Amino acid sequence: MKIICQKEDLQKGVSIVSKAVPAKTTMPILECILIDAETGSIKMTANDMELGIETTITGMIEVPGKIALEAKVFSEIVRRLPDNAVTIETDENYTTTIVCEKAKFAIPGKAGDDFAYLPQVEKNQNISLSQFTLKEIIRQTIFSISDNENNKMMSGELMEIEKDTLKLVSLDGHRISIRKVRLKEEYDPIKVVIPGKTLSDVSKILTGDNDSEVELFFTNNHIIFEFDQTTVVSRLIEGEYFRINQMLNSDYETKLVINKKEFLNCIDRATLLVKESDKKPLILTITDSNMAVKLNSSLGSLNEDIAVEKNGKDIKIGFNPKFLTDALRVIDEEMVTLYMVNPKAPCFIRDEEESYIYLILPVNFTEE
Amino acid sequence: MKIICQKEDLQKGVSIVSKAVPAKTTMPILECILIDAETGSIKMTANDMELGIETTITGMIEVPGKIALEAKVFSEIVRRLPDNAVTIETDENYTTTIVCEKAKFAIPGKAGDDFAYLPQVEKNQNISLSQFTLKEIIRQTIFSISDNENNKMMSGELMEIEKDTLKLVSLDGHRISIRKVRLKEEYDPIKVVIPGKTLSDVSKILTGDNDSEVELFFTNNHIIFEFDQTTVVSRLIEGEYFRINQMLNSDYETKLVINKKEFLNCIDRATLLVKESDKKPLILTITDSNMAVKLNSSLGSLNEDIAVEKNGKDIKIGFNPKFLTDALRVIDEEMVTLYMVNPKAPCFIRDEEESYIYLILPVNFTEE
Repeated sequence: MKIICQKEDLQKGVSIVSKAVPAKTTMPILECILIDAETGSIKMTANDMELGIETTITGMIEVPGKIALEAKVFSEIVRRLPDNAVTIETDENYTTTIVCEKAKFAIPGKAGDDFAYLPQVEKNQNISLSQFTLKEIIRQTIFSISDNENNKMMSGELMEIEKDTLKLVSLDGHRISIRKVRLKEEYDPIKVVIPGKTLSDVSKILTGDNDSEVELFFTNNHIIFEFDQTTVVSRLIEGEYFRINQMLNSDYETKLVINKKEFLNCIDRATLLVKESDKKPLILTITDSNMAVKLNSSLGSLNEDIAVEKNGKDIKIGFNPKFLTDALRVIDEEMVTLYMVNPKAPCFIRDEEESYIYLILPVNFTEE
Repeated sequence: MKIICQKEDLQKGVSIVSKAVPAKTTMPILECILIDAETGSIKMTANDMELGIETTITGMIEVPGKIALEAKVFSEIVRRLPDNAVTIETDENYTTTIVCEKAKFAIPGKAGDDFAYLPQVEKNQNISLSQFTLKEIIRQTIFSISDNENNKMMSGELMEIEKDTLKLVSLDGHRISIRKVRLKEEYDPIKVVIPGKTLSDVSKILTGDNDSEVELFFTNNHIIFEFDQTTVVSRLIEGEYFRINQMLNSDYETKLVINKKEFLNCIDRATLLVKESDKKPLILTITDSNMAVKLNSSLGSLNEDIAVEKNGKDIKIGFNPKFLTDALRVIDEEMVTLYMVNPKAPCFIRDEEESYIYLILPVNFTEE
């Protein structure tokens, strides 16, 4: 194989497919990036058997062929080359020379034949949305998946499509995050659970451009993301997702409108008193037009008042401050609305149209 | 004690004195910052017994007094307060309330009496130079001190003043870094060894302003840095520094002028093939107007040619690439000059006036 690409194109390709190179593996071939220039275009592929990414890069093929190169060394080399044309050439022993200006690297490669290509899946059902929207809703829900090894379902997110609405849901046993977006047309119903790692990797590759689309294809076992010159194929998590509808409830006793930034800054101050080993709740005492925020720990105490707009009953309720922060951070609105029933029942942060719903369980606290 | 300061002033003071708060200590009082408002000004002090820092901040004293506050919590609190006036007030149990707008922190404090003040030293000899210059020469030499616990002398830097020249020297057994600067007037000779940690902390506090001066005072055991509203007192390292003059030699067989940036980029590419566990030398083969750079490791090989201007003999010589990088990075000139004698003798990187001298020992290498 002999190809010539611009360093910039090479680097972009490497950076995209590297997301699917596993950090640790017992199969050395999986640590490689495959460069395949056999069929008229230069394709790069990486595949950790759960997630596979393929991208096509611009370049000239002088001798068709393919080679698998150790991803870490190859990407480090590409990154440090001068900004100029790069020639990649392999010999019969798979030794690969990478030449750019006066720099000439020689590294060992592997036969491309051992490489696990992306699974060929039938592309039946597909939907389309903007890169920006997909990237946003992943960011706005991914934080509440669980990394609990014992519950694989919680490490993924539910993607549910019903008519023209796409819903993304994550939960970890203490909270639920839901984002809904409107699609441009109506689709047949789809309900799949996507690994959190896949969503997080995809969101890193997406440019976030509002004018570029992502096509999603679904099969029984796989989801495929197609955008720009890139295809991402991921296994789905098998099984039925949690029934979240029965946990959602629109009744409330207390409704609170609060300035998001003031609330976040106050929680930020309170949490500096919280040590890892000694989790303390943030206690909110909500009366007419005032919320008294209090946190006591072995390091000291914080008391702070925030002006609020309250409807309904007074309430005193405790939260893990991190759960409030996580949800508030991904809400774009300046003012947010909290709905509460009692100090034992979940609190909801949601907008009127329920384009977002963040359910957070309160925590018990003892009165001094 | 009751004082009122602007958050910004408070934060600046805390950030300066925090450099002298030890990370670990068996004496809890050393983990504190002392706020002393007994004598008409607000002074903050921290002292780890090797290094002490005191700075005066702007503010209003309503009730004179002093308090020692745990540095980590106090600095975290200050950092997260709104940008506004902050009131710090202590009660008879040393509980300290910190109030800013609607936020009110209460943290435990300690009696200031237990605090170790800075040593009172006689200020006899003193010299003066710009903050910019001091900060620069520290940066340009600090990298080659040794963190070898068994050789305390190597963990410090020699500061030598002779007439109007200040010289800063560091060495670690494989290399020597020397920077010389011209002072505005002549001084009596001074020769002291300053702990590397002191220099590194001082350089972090210095604004690097070319128009502000630092005054240095010397005693038998201490050095004092005075600048802006801040005083830094540090113990000196006792004993005689290494005799470096006998290691310096201006004879050479090969003189090489090279573009610094090209050389640095080339070394950067080569070092990506070097694993921690498997140090490989960078081999330079210098002939007329060309330097062939080569590095072989288990990961692969790099070969690169760089155009140079050579005088004297051809030479083939090996280096630890890190030592070359460290020195080249802190040289401001676009072109640098290397002087070599043979593959066993030290290489010198220096300018004509010897305002900098970087001595680097070569390493052995085996020819394939």
